[in-house]
Amino acid sequence: MDNSTIIAMVSIITAGVTTGIGCMIPALGQGKSISTALSSMAQQPDAGQTITRTLFVGLAMLESLAIYCFVISMILIFANPFWNHFIAK
Amino acid sequence: MDNSTIIAMVSIITAGVTTGIGCMIPALGQGKSISTALSSMAQQPDAGQTITRTLFVGLAMLESLAIYCFVISMILIFANPFWNHFIAK
Amino acid sequence: MDNSTIIAMVSIITAGVTTGIGCMIPALGQGKSISTALSSMAQQPDAGQTITRTLFVGLAMLESLAIYCFVISMILIFANPFWNHFIAK
Amino acid sequence: MDNSTIIAMVSIITAGVTTGIGCMIPALGQGKSISTALSSMAQQPDAGQTITRTLFVGLAMLESLAIYCFVISMILIFANPFWNHFIAK
Amino acid sequence: MDNSTIIAMVSIITAGVTTGIGCMIPALGQGKSISTALSSMAQQPDAGQTITRTLFVGLAMLESLAIYCFVISMILIFANPFWNHFIAK
Amino acid sequence: MDNSTIIAMVSIITAGVTTGIGCMIPALGQGKSISTALSSMAQQPDAGQTITRTLFVGLAMLESLAIYCFVISMILIFANPFWNHFIAK
Amino acid sequence: MDNSTIIAMVSIITAGVTTGIGCMIPALGQGKSISTALSSMAQQPDAGQTITRTLFVGLAMLESLAIYCFVISMILIFANPFWNHFIAK
Amino acid sequence: MDNSTIIAMVSIITAGVTTGIGCMIPALGQGKSISTALSSMAQQPDAGQTITRTLFVGLAMLESLAIYCFVISMILIFANPFWNHFIAK
Amino acid sequence: MDNSTIIAMVSIITAGVTTGIGCMIPALGQGKSISTALSSMAQQPDAGQTITRTLFVGLAMLESLAIYCFVISMILIFANPFWNHFIAK
Amino acid sequence: MDNSTIIAMVSIITAGVTTGIGCMIPALGQGKSISTALSSMAQQPDAGQTITRTLFVGLAMLESLAIYCFVISMILIFANPFWNHFIAK
Amino acid sequence: MDNSTIIAMVSIITAGVTTGIGCMIPALGQGKSISTALSSMAQQPDAGQTITRTLFVGLAMLESLAIYCFVISMILIFANPFWNHFIAK
Amino acid sequence: MDNSTIIAMVSIITAGVTTGIGCMIPALGQGKSISTALSSMAQQPDAGQTITRTLFVGLAMLESLAIYCFVISMILIFANPFWNHFIAK
Amino acid sequence: MDNSTIIAMVSIITAGVTTGIGCMIPALGQGKSISTALSSMAQQPDAGQTITRTLFVGLAMLESLAIYCFVISMILIFANPFWNHFIAK
Amino acid sequence: MDNSTIIAMVSIITAGVTTGIGCMIPALGQGKSISTALSSMAQQPDAGQTITRTLFVGLAMLESLAIYCFVISMILIFANPFWNHFIAK
Repeated sequence: MDNSTIIAMVSIITAGVTTGIGCMIPALGQGKSISTALSSMAQQPDAGQTITRTLFVGLAMLESLAIYCFVISMILIFANPFWNHFIAK
Repeated sequence: MDNSTIIAMVSIITAGVTTGIGCMIPALGQGKSISTALSSMAQQPDAGQTITRTLFVGLAMLESLAIYCFVISMILIFANPFWNHFIAK
Repeated sequence: MDNSTIIAMVSIITAGVTTGIGCMIPALGQGKSISTALSSMAQQPDAGQTITRTLFVGLAMLESLAIYCFVISMILIFANPFWNHFIAK
Repeated sequence: MDNSTIIAMVSIITAGVTTGIGCMIPALGQGKSISTALSSMAQQPDAGQTITRTLFVGLAMLESLAIYCFVISMILIFANPFWNHFIAK
Repeated sequence: MDNSTIIAMVSIITAGVTTGIGCMIPALGQGKSISTALSSMAQQPDAGQTITRTLFVGLAMLESLAIYCFVISMILIFANPFWNHFIAK
Repeated sequence: MDNSTIIAMVSIITAGVTTGIGCMIPALGQGKSISTALSSMAQQPDAGQTITRTLFVGLAMLESLAIYCFVISMILIFANPFWNHFIAK
Repeated sequence: MDNSTIIAMVSIITAGVTTGIGCMIPALGQGKSISTALSSMAQQPDAGQTITRTLFVGLAMLESLAIYCFVISMILIFANPFWNHFIAK
Repeated sequence: MDNSTIIAMVSIITAGVTTGIGCMIPALGQGKSISTALSSMAQQPDAGQTITRTLFVGLAMLESLAIYCFVISMILIFANPFWNHFIAK
Repeated sequence: MDNSTIIAMVSIITAGVTTGIGCMIPALGQGKSISTALSSMAQQPDAGQTITRTLFVGLAMLESLAIYCFVISMILIFANPFWNHFIAK
Repeated sequence: MDNSTIIAMVSIITAGVTTGIGCMIPALGQGKSISTALSSMAQQPDAGQTITRTLFVGLAMLESLAIYCFVISMILIFANPFWNHFIAK
Repeated sequence: MDNSTIIAMVSIITAGVTTGIGCMIPALGQGKSISTALSSMAQQPDAGQTITRTLFVGLAMLESLAIYCFVISMILIFANPFWNHFIAK
Repeated sequence: MDNSTIIAMVSIITAGVTTGIGCMIPALGQGKSISTALSSMAQQPDAGQTITRTLFVGLAMLESLAIYCFVISMILIFANPFWNHFIAK
Repeated sequence: MDNSTIIAMVSIITAGVTTGIGCMIPALGQGKSISTALSSMAQQPDAGQTITRTLFVGLAMLESLAIYCFVISMILIFANPFWNHFIAK
Repeated sequence: MDNSTIIAMVSIITAGVTTGIGCMIPALGQGKSISTALSSMAQQPDAGQTITRTLFVGLAMLESLAIYCFVISMILIFANPFWNHFIAK
């Protein structure tokens, strides 16, 4: 294995694992939030609008955490400074 | 093992594992959301329409997390820049 | 082990593991959804039709997550670009 | 170990593990669904017929997930394209 | 280790592990189903017959999942195509 | 290590592990069933006979799962086709 | 390590582990059963005799699962066909 | 490492681990049983004698499971047929 | 592997894993906070404003923890003193 | 490593691990028992004496399980037949 | 690998892992605290000010624990005495 | 590594791990006991004295389990017969 | 790897891991304490002062446990007797 | 690696891990105790003094368990008999 192969190899693995793991718990958090929103709506239909608004802000914040991971993955695949260094060599 | 074999090998493994893991928790979140939606409907049939609408938005957001993982897998199988680099060589 | 053997080996393993793992949590989600649907029906027989309809949409979305994994497995067994590359060589 | 031995070896292992793992959670889901069905019937005997019908649809969907895994195992044992390739050689 | 030894070895291990693991969760599901059936009967003795019938259908479906695993094990011990191939050689 | 030693070795290990693991969850299921039966009897003494009958059918089905594993172990120790093959040689 | 040493070694390990693991969950099941029996008796002293009888049948069935494992261990230590084969040689 | 050292080594490890693991869950079961006995007594002081009797029978059965493991350990340390074989040699 | 390759390799892996892991529990905490906020709003609509304000402060603090991890990752990819040392050499 | 070093090494490790693990669950059981005893006393002060007596018998039985493990450790450190054998040699 | 490479390597890994792990449970604790604060406010709006004050003190203490870990990471990356020693050499 | 180094090495590791692990669950048990004692006192202030007495006996018994582990550690560090044997040599 | 490198390496790793792990559970304990304090205040505003005082004492004791770990880490980085020994050499 | 390096290495690792692990569960126990104390005070303000006193005794006992581990760590770093032996040599 020469150097660029190793860099390519760990970039691929890390890109996959980071997104795979990083989407797990935000998904859990979203599932929990949506689930509570639904049961709260059924309980208090009048507060539906406030609940929906807060829910969407919350989902967006959770989505942002998953997107940090996705960004790291994308950087590792398409804008990897280490890879560029070895390729340039 | 020459270099392109290694790249192919880790791409295959990572593609499989990323989708395999990345679909787990969104599925859990969807299961939880659907389950709460059903029990909320039974409890408050009048709010059925609002619940269904919120449920579908939520399912779509959860699906999006699983699709991030699926996209990474597809990129690794069909548009892998590292693989192209070694093949081009 | 020559190169094509390695590719074949990891394709087989990844195909099996991806489907094996990827069906787990959708099954859990479906089990939970069906279970809540049944208990909601018993509680509110009148809402049976709405519940059944929502349940089937939900089951379909969960099934779709398992099918992503199954698709990856099938691609790895029957339409594997890496394998084709090494065979063509 | 020559090449065909390796392929045979991983096919056997993967076939066993995929079915072994893949039947776990559908069994859990079925157990949960059956269990809720029984307690719902006891609670609301009149809804028995609707519950039984929904239960069987649900069990069939869960069974389908286990069967995806079983299909992968069967393909790996009796219709394995990688094995055929090495045997043909 | 020559080739047929390896194939025999992994067949034995896989046969044991597949059945060992594959019987776990169906047993859990059956235990849960039986347990709910018993408590439902105590609660609603009149529905006893319907509960018993549904219970037995459910137990049979769960047993079927365990039997998939047992079948794989039996195929690997007594009708293993890979083993036959190496023996025939 | 010659070939027959390896086969003997994995047969011993697999025989022990299969029974050791395979008895776990049926025991859990039986414990749960017995426990619910006892508390149901205390709650509804009149239904005692039906409960006992259903309990024994359930215990038998759970025992059957443990016996599948025990059978695999016994086959591996006393009627192992792979072992016979190497001994005959 | 010559052959008989290996066989002796894995027999010892497997004997210990099989009994060690195999006694775990039956003990859990017995603990649960005894515990429910005691609380049922306190709740319904009149049903004490029926509860005691059913409890003892249940404990015996759970004990039988642990004894399967103990039997395998004893066979591996004192009546091991593989060991006899290598000793006889 | 000569043969008798290996046998001594695995005997020591297995003896320790078997007792260490094998005492865990019986201890859990006993803790649960004692705990329920105490709370049942507080709830129904009149049934104290029956509870105590059943508790002691149960503790004895759980103790028996731990003693199976202890017996295996003692056999491996003081009456190990494999060790005697190698020593005699 | 020469020295700069090793540094690049561990930087890539650590960057991915740190963000992947570090986003998990903040996501869980946010999910929990949002979920409680929603159910509190449904219960006490009048306190909606105070709840929303406290929720956003809380989400910001949790986000800060995830951002510590993201910062470490960014430093490791784009401003890594160890990498600079070896490159400068 | 000569033979007596190996025996000493595994004796030390096993002695430590056996006591370390073997005290865990009895401690859990005792904690549970004491905890229930205290809450039962608060609930039914009149039954205090019976509860105390049963508690001490139970603690003694749990202590006995931990002492089995301690005995194995002491035998391995101070009266180890395998060690004596190698020393005597 | 020469010495400074090894030191750089473990510094990078440890820096990442320490922050990654060390932010987990403070995040859990903050999530729990915020969540309870919100539900307490909804329940007792009058105590809102005291709750907010105590919450912020608590969040600060939890943040401090995460910052210990972050400090260790920063020291390892930017003020590492071991690294300075080897560089100075 | 000569013999006395190995013995020193495993003695250090085992001493640390035995105490580290062995203090875990007694601490859990004590935490549980203290916690129940406090809530029982709040519920039934009159029984405070009896509760305190029983609590201290229980804490002492749990402490004794942790001390067994501490004793093993101290023996391994300051009175290790295996170490003395190798030093004397 | 020469000796001082090894000592530096394990000091770095241990320093990071000890603080990383050692801050986990105190954070959990603080989170739990703060959370209960908040809900107790909402329930009984009059006892607010006593609760706050006890909470701060408790947080301090939990912080002390985390600081033991932090101290060990600091000693290993800045006042490590083993490192000084090898450097002095 | 010469002998004193190995002893230094395992002393460092063990010192860190023992304190890291050994502070976990006492922290959990303290967290639980403090949490119950707070909720008990809110519930029964009159018993506040007795609760505080018992709480501090309990915290001290839990702290003692963590200190056993800290003592072991300190002995391994600053008063290690094995290290002194090798240094003296």
